[in-house]
Amino acid sequence: MSQPAEGVATQFATIAIVGVGLIGGSLAAAIKRRSLARTVIGVGRDAVRMAKARERGLIDEAATHLGQAAASSDMLIFCTPVDRIVSQVREAAAACRSGTLVTDAGSVKGTICAGLASGLPAGVGFVGSHPLAGSEKQGFEYADAELFQGRVCVVTPLPASPRQAIDRVRRFWEGVGSTVLEMSPEDHDRALAATSHVPHVVAAALAAILDADKAPLAASGFRDATRIAAGDPELWSAILLANRDSILSSLQNYEHSLRKFHEALAARDAQRLKELLLAAKSKRDGLVAERN
Amino acid sequence: MSQPAEGVATQFATIAIVGVGLIGGSLAAAIKRRSLARTVIGVGRDAVRMAKARERGLIDEAATHLGQAAASSDMLIFCTPVDRIVSQVREAAAACRSGTLVTDAGSVKGTICAGLASGLPAGVGFVGSHPLAGSEKQGFEYADAELFQGRVCVVTPLPASPRQAIDRVRRFWEGVGSTVLEMSPEDHDRALAATSHVPHVVAAALAAILDADKAPLAASGFRDATRIAAGDPELWSAILLANRDSILSSLQNYEHSLRKFHEALAARDAQRLKELLLAAKSKRDGLVAERN
Repeated sequence: MSQPAEGVATQFATIAIVGVGLIGGSLAAAIKRRSLARTVIGVGRDAVRMAKARERGLIDEAATHLGQAAASSDMLIFCTPVDRIVSQVREAAAACRSGTLVTDAGSVKGTICAGLASGLPAGVGFVGSHPLAGSEKQGFEYADAELFQGRVCVVTPLPASPRQAIDRVRRFWEGVGSTVLEMSPEDHDRALAATSHVPHVVAAALAAILDADKAPLAASGFRDATRIAAGDPELWSAILLANRDSILSSLQNYEHSLRKFHEALAARDAQRLKELLLAAKSKRDGLVAERN
Repeated sequence: MSQPAEGVATQFATIAIVGVGLIGGSLAAAIKRRSLARTVIGVGRDAVRMAKARERGLIDEAATHLGQAAASSDMLIFCTPVDRIVSQVREAAAACRSGTLVTDAGSVKGTICAGLASGLPAGVGFVGSHPLAGSEKQGFEYADAELFQGRVCVVTPLPASPRQAIDRVRRFWEGVGSTVLEMSPEDHDRALAATSHVPHVVAAALAAILDADKAPLAASGFRDATRIAAGDPELWSAILLANRDSILSSLQNYEHSLRKFHEALAARDAQRLKELLLAAKSKRDGLVAERN
């Protein structure tokens, strides 16, 4: 009998998801719904939470010992906070079989990819990933097998990354429905500073000044503009610190942009204000329509 | 035969909606669906657009002459840009019958209410309103008869406003499904600077710095945070200028808040960053759930 050709279906015998929150839980659900692996192991420190994820059918096996899970998996995906990924990958890699593929779902790539550029056992390949999907919600209770469908996933190889490992990671993300963009970790971090990390700071700074007595007058505009500020402070402080330099640079651009609006308003310069608002509207209108 | 009691149904024989865009068109639709008037006249300068609104069934009669429409209406609602409302109300009021009620839907109340505090013909009462409903979309094509359902409408009487006129305006907004809050024009403007006008500036300043090459990496967070920046620049520059002083004051609060985040990140102060993010999250989480 011939082996089945490697296609989208059942790319892996066993995938371990390390960190089963919103992203990890959604990935587990997506893998199972699309039959990308025969077995999905969920790895987490809290045995009770992991048992619940298993009861829900998100994962096939629950593990609290990273090394054991790593030893029996063909692929590991780290969905843990960005400041923990490097040390966890190192710990897991020591137990991995040769040929095991390792990636992550962290929102910052430079520090993670640089931290894993060398020193992993031969035969264990790490290629960073960042699926641009998520929510201000937390926990696998909000897991959604279609979270990655139609979304962009950025894959960030290093110059030394073997093409085969990059392609296997790409195929995995395509398998859960995403469109893959490949770029360097540094380009990723500069772009995400502008499109995600600075917007988070901007939204949080805005939410922070809402007086309780004015809350009844906060309508959909305020709610939209501050929605991301409901994200987990622990996760987000780690993201901001891990991409500090790009964020500070992008934040300076933003402050300069804000200053232009401030000055036009202070000067009662209607023409200038309209120009600034029109330029902003054109940029916003240029974004392609969202999926629902 | 006794007169029907004044209830929610058919409060008015004829209501004129001046400015039939998203808000005016939605109001017309809401009035008709809820039978708050026997006849709805739409008033606008563009005869072709007004004929289209009539063909759609949003309004019963289309008018391009404000005075004529005013003369045959019991209530007028101005849904025109905030910098035109005062002069238009004056023009209309000169033609109104005694007992006609006049309100508006402008996002700024101080300049409008002060501009109309005196000099209207005896028997014509103006009480300002601001329904907290809307969208970045424009035009009666997006009209929604349920736009005001479950939303807050702020009614901003002056000390001299007759209680009867205030109550009739309140009942009107309750009739289209809104919860009415009553406050002074100045309190309204201070609150809306923080909950709507500064968020608009913040979102526009953020949208303005998006480079085209980074747009594919703008996910739901960026889209949410900048959605209101797609609003009409003409309308918004008028709103910002009409509430300039309160906005400048609130913008200063915002810049101070942003500076705290900036400094904590620059100093790599993880603890401080977490505290700031947590305080922002608490404020955002404190907003009651949105209607869908």
